[in-house]
Amino acid sequence: MTAQILEPAPLPPILAAPAAAAAGAAMHALLTRLFPLCRSITGEGVRQTLQIVREYLPALQVHEVPTGTPAYDWQVPREWNIRDAYVKNRRGERVIDFQRHNLHVVSYSVPVQGWLTRAELLPHLHSLPAQPHLIPYRTSYYTESWGFCLPHQDLLRLNEPAYEVCIDSTLAAGSLTYGELLLPGSSAEEVLISCHICHPSLANDNLSGLTVAVFLAQHLARQPRRYTYRFVFVPGTIGSLVWLSRNAGAVGRIRHGLVVTLLGSAGSFTYKKSRRGTAEIDRLVALVLRETNLPHHLQDFVPSGYDERQYCSPGFDLPVGCLSRTPYGEFPEYHTSADNPDFVRPAALAGALELCQTIVDRLEANRRYRNLSPYGEPQLGRRGLYKATGGGLEGAPWQLALLWVLNLADGQATLLDMAERSGLGFAVLGQAARALLDCGLLAEEPESFSNPATTSAYGNC
Amino acid sequence: MTAQILEPAPLPPILAAPAAAAAGAAMHALLTRLFPLCRSITGEGVRQTLQIVREYLPALQVHEVPTGTPAYDWQVPREWNIRDAYVKNRRGERVIDFQRHNLHVVSYSVPVQGWLTRAELLPHLHSLPAQPHLIPYRTSYYTESWGFCLPHQDLLRLNEPAYEVCIDSTLAAGSLTYGELLLPGSSAEEVLISCHICHPSLANDNLSGLTVAVFLAQHLARQPRRYTYRFVFVPGTIGSLVWLSRNAGAVGRIRHGLVVTLLGSAGSFTYKKSRRGTAEIDRLVALVLRETNLPHHLQDFVPSGYDERQYCSPGFDLPVGCLSRTPYGEFPEYHTSADNPDFVRPAALAGALELCQTIVDRLEANRRYRNLSPYGEPQLGRRGLYKATGGGLEGAPWQLALLWVLNLADGQATLLDMAERSGLGFAVLGQAARALLDCGLLAEEPESFSNPATTSAYGNC
Amino acid sequence: MTAQILEPAPLPPILAAPAAAAAGAAMHALLTRLFPLCRSITGEGVRQTLQIVREYLPALQVHEVPTGTPAYDWQVPREWNIRDAYVKNRRGERVIDFQRHNLHVVSYSVPVQGWLTRAELLPHLHSLPAQPHLIPYRTSYYTESWGFCLPHQDLLRLNEPAYEVCIDSTLAAGSLTYGELLLPGSSAEEVLISCHICHPSLANDNLSGLTVAVFLAQHLARQPRRYTYRFVFVPGTIGSLVWLSRNAGAVGRIRHGLVVTLLGSAGSFTYKKSRRGTAEIDRLVALVLRETNLPHHLQDFVPSGYDERQYCSPGFDLPVGCLSRTPYGEFPEYHTSADNPDFVRPAALAGALELCQTIVDRLEANRRYRNLSPYGEPQLGRRGLYKATGGGLEGAPWQLALLWVLNLADGQATLLDMAERSGLGFAVLGQAARALLDCGLLAEEPESFSNPATTSAYGNC
Repeated sequence: MTAQILEPAPLPPILAAPAAAAAGAAMHALLTRLFPLCRSITGEGVRQTLQIVREYLPALQVHEVPTGTPAYDWQVPREWNIRDAYVKNRRGERVIDFQRHNLHVVSYSVPVQGWLTRAELLPHLHSLPAQPHLIPYRTSYYTESWGFCLPHQDLLRLNEPAYEVCIDSTLAAGSLTYGELLLPGSSAEEVLISCHICHPSLANDNLSGLTVAVFLAQHLARQPRRYTYRFVFVPGTIGSLVWLSRNAGAVGRIRHGLVVTLLGSAGSFTYKKSRRGTAEIDRLVALVLRETNLPHHLQDFVPSGYDERQYCSPGFDLPVGCLSRTPYGEFPEYHTSADNPDFVRPAALAGALELCQTIVDRLEANRRYRNLSPYGEPQLGRRGLYKATGGGLEGAPWQLALLWVLNLADGQATLLDMAERSGLGFAVLGQAARALLDCGLLAEEPESFSNPATTSAYGNC
Repeated sequence: MTAQILEPAPLPPILAAPAAAAAGAAMHALLTRLFPLCRSITGEGVRQTLQIVREYLPALQVHEVPTGTPAYDWQVPREWNIRDAYVKNRRGERVIDFQRHNLHVVSYSVPVQGWLTRAELLPHLHSLPAQPHLIPYRTSYYTESWGFCLPHQDLLRLNEPAYEVCIDSTLAAGSLTYGELLLPGSSAEEVLISCHICHPSLANDNLSGLTVAVFLAQHLARQPRRYTYRFVFVPGTIGSLVWLSRNAGAVGRIRHGLVVTLLGSAGSFTYKKSRRGTAEIDRLVALVLRETNLPHHLQDFVPSGYDERQYCSPGFDLPVGCLSRTPYGEFPEYHTSADNPDFVRPAALAGALELCQTIVDRLEANRRYRNLSPYGEPQLGRRGLYKATGGGLEGAPWQLALLWVLNLADGQATLLDMAERSGLGFAVLGQAARALLDCGLLAEEPESFSNPATTSAYGNC
Repeated sequence: MTAQILEPAPLPPILAAPAAAAAGAAMHALLTRLFPLCRSITGEGVRQTLQIVREYLPALQVHEVPTGTPAYDWQVPREWNIRDAYVKNRRGERVIDFQRHNLHVVSYSVPVQGWLTRAELLPHLHSLPAQPHLIPYRTSYYTESWGFCLPHQDLLRLNEPAYEVCIDSTLAAGSLTYGELLLPGSSAEEVLISCHICHPSLANDNLSGLTVAVFLAQHLARQPRRYTYRFVFVPGTIGSLVWLSRNAGAVGRIRHGLVVTLLGSAGSFTYKKSRRGTAEIDRLVALVLRETNLPHHLQDFVPSGYDERQYCSPGFDLPVGCLSRTPYGEFPEYHTSADNPDFVRPAALAGALELCQTIVDRLEANRRYRNLSPYGEPQLGRRGLYKATGGGLEGAPWQLALLWVLNLADGQATLLDMAERSGLGFAVLGQAARALLDCGLLAEEPESFSNPATTSAYGNC
């Protein structure tokens, strides 16, 4: 007899548990396969990495930018490749052997060959006295140098008067390699997802970010998109600068962005805000994290860190934040041989993917609405959206969500604005907006500009 | 020998204790007289209620709006009246009897007559298992239905196989009735005081608000007014929508407003802010409550509640807050037969009246001032406003009030602004402004617009 | 082999310990020399005081403004001078003797001579029952009156039936005297330093402020200046009003200002903000105090206090705060004979001078910068500003300071803005800006206007 309120069912989780487990395993498998490659900011390791990524994202474009190409204050350096490197003792035994771990060589080491006294060799050796079992990760990209990294306990055993040293590397004109995937949406406005791919055998930093980006791109490729998504897989600093310098048009269309990194550890999520601090992406990620009810950290922008440093430099000031778990330098495995595939947990990768999917799904959903019946409340009862018998207590989230959406939908407020003001969940507000759209009480505001490139040569992945 | 500072005497309380007791008794008498009437959103109960209010406010205008008249998304429903209703057992005894309490019938019940089996009857019965002695209040305004409300302990005793049911009501073309009182002021800018009058025998909800509104109108009618005051006595939701739809001109002149409700309980005051959140009424009521030094609650706007839902809908967004004591749903007597005149305390009504009088008196007093001697401090000493012998400590509130008013009176700041910034009381700042006006150091800023209607046909109450 | 980062040495303290001790001693010597003079808001005591100040600041200009000259709502009062004053008992002994302490006479007492009964005398006597050993300080500038101040314990001993009273003062047409020192800078924009000089033998209030102002002026006179500095040594209230009324042009050029007072006690520093509350001087002093790591207090503006009352009156609303140690009325020696040179500590004066020097040095340094390479980070490594070997942890303040300056230098942000946002010290950010200027990555924004008066007749001190 009583008309029932058309209350929607609760939303299902984005990834059901078995799907999450499968995703985590698949992601970890990709990470493990990429781990042994000797990446740096240029060279074959990067090319091989992107080749494997292309198996997952066939539409990935791989760009080669020649040595010497200017990128703002920088230029593309010479390309670095390495075949072998070792330190041998007088018995010809490799006491340091690049073949066993590519962290043993300082990245971008110039070639060297010959016998050095122990005293000559020592300044070229890097170790971690406080973590004597681990090989550190060291680079010398922009100063000509060479060096070896080794466990401090091994360094202490180098007691012979002289050693034979060999680094069989090349540092020569070549190119810088990066990958780019464009997923066109109905709007030409873009969301940028960026990860650095320049670290050799380090798993969390940043094969975890790369892996999450790959699977997020797959997720987005399978669904209709409002925004255009641009994934960039770049060497740190120089790679993002090169990409920025070659894509002035795209830069002007970026509305939101995330640098994804360090997403494989067991640590809780950390979101570092963009330089703007109150950009939509900053507020939206904060809301999504709050709604997870998991411990998490929000950090204000600082100009150190990953490629958000470049995207948030004052000439660009893009709304790009950085999503990670425990940040760099705050876990003992950071930049050491302990950052290996065992350190990365499949469930952590799957959780990060799920978080990223929630973020992009909500960016997609975060429309502006206009109440088409703004003078007083519309009569929800005759539309099946209000309980028929009055007098009892109100206050169910669904009923409140309908009232909040109607009250705030002035053509400017987004679902995010409504969630922040009402304290209600983004999801229930989105369901309420959908119900009100369906009965003609609400309108979506039109997008500010549509995408002329949707039918362009850019393929889908 | 020393010139004395002309420091004013402390302000007397607005209502001295005997006057407050008398006001409380008079208010409670009106409430008790109105209690038995069977009000709803239309019908004779509302007409009789307004007839009694007119004894107190002779200038009250009673409006009748025909069934079917549109009001934005709504229209005036059919008029509902009821003569009798009962459920009789096989011995002809009334086991539920509308004559004993008009909460026994679901408001807007359609007529029904005949014998029903117990199983047929039960879905039409409403009770409160957790409060088994009380009759609940239920309505079905916009869905054709009928029902009875009764104590749960009585419902449990309905063990006979069949009952005779009668609701002798009419639901027919008629009109919606509301009352309106305009007290013109020197300015055409308006203050809206609104209360809902649609509840049958419920005392706190909202004969308390009605009573406070009536006595507040009497208070205002006796004194010169800067603002024009408009009191509306309306059925909830549909009544305020009807009023809004018929008064577009007045709506544009509303500068401040209060919905008054639930003012008779022993609970502390609660002020729910307007949708704007920082309107003058919001800040002023907060200040007045703070200065009472009594416990009180400030709530942010939410789009549930009373007619502030309509006034604060996005198409109007009026600066209208809601003043109550313990809010709806937060006291066990809410919407039950326990909300009777015994639940309402005369002292609570008198205290609410005094608070409302303080609020309107301060709205009246909350002028903008301009310091006419703004370059440095004026020499207060030769005007008798500064102590003659220097060197001792300063800091008396009266002296500070004079200095604060002079310092802040830039033609924009109101007394409220000054009170918020200085931390001094509104009253002492008002006295200081008066003293500075008297000696020509201060000017009141002119009103933004005066009232062409002051000499109009609108009478006084 | 590794290129070293050009990290600057830490800044030396502004005053090394021996220099601070010498400064404290020199300041205390000046204060002690000025202490015995009987200052008031006019008269020879003020002239003698400024004559001694001129020994330290030869460029000080001393202005005489005739009695009756209008200054906004006020006018210059008659000039007051006093030669002698006493109360004698029947034996001709001076039981109150102005020659022993000039606080014994109420400032601006009119002349009086003759015998008074004890009952006639008593209303003219001021004492402090709660501090019976101390002479209070009292004035009667703008009401014709006379009186004596004495320790309460002495007052209790005045048991004779009559006393001979004499105040050998003059109150006659003359002039108000104030001092002014202008130190031109490369910009015509001005910093105002103001202190009151009207108190007789009171050391902390305000010979301490006067002394700090004198030594701060000497410090500024010895160095190149961006801002023009104007020091005013004025009688309280009427003196600042006279100065304001005669310097409309200068008032329009004041960008920052400080009233200095009560700087000699052992109390911690207190900064009372300007009426604006967020002026550059307010934020900068707050930062400097925070960086001292000493306890200190920040107060919001109130229109009582010292001459900031006049500078911050609504017609001027100048960005002038008030710097003191323990504020007036909050230490028991305030306005009593206990506020003598022993109460003032040389180290407190030196610490206040150092604080003031730091404040003006940072005002001078607080320029706006523009990053000339704003698209991405510039390559600091090839300029010797970034470590050559990567992979280790970042985060040294010097490295972060370079990155923050580059990130925030948008042509609007000052070093103060950068310090507030980054949490880094003002000094290290200034060093970073200097290093970036030196390598051409940064530019100082030009001043808003230069100083046509730099070559004017105004001398240097």
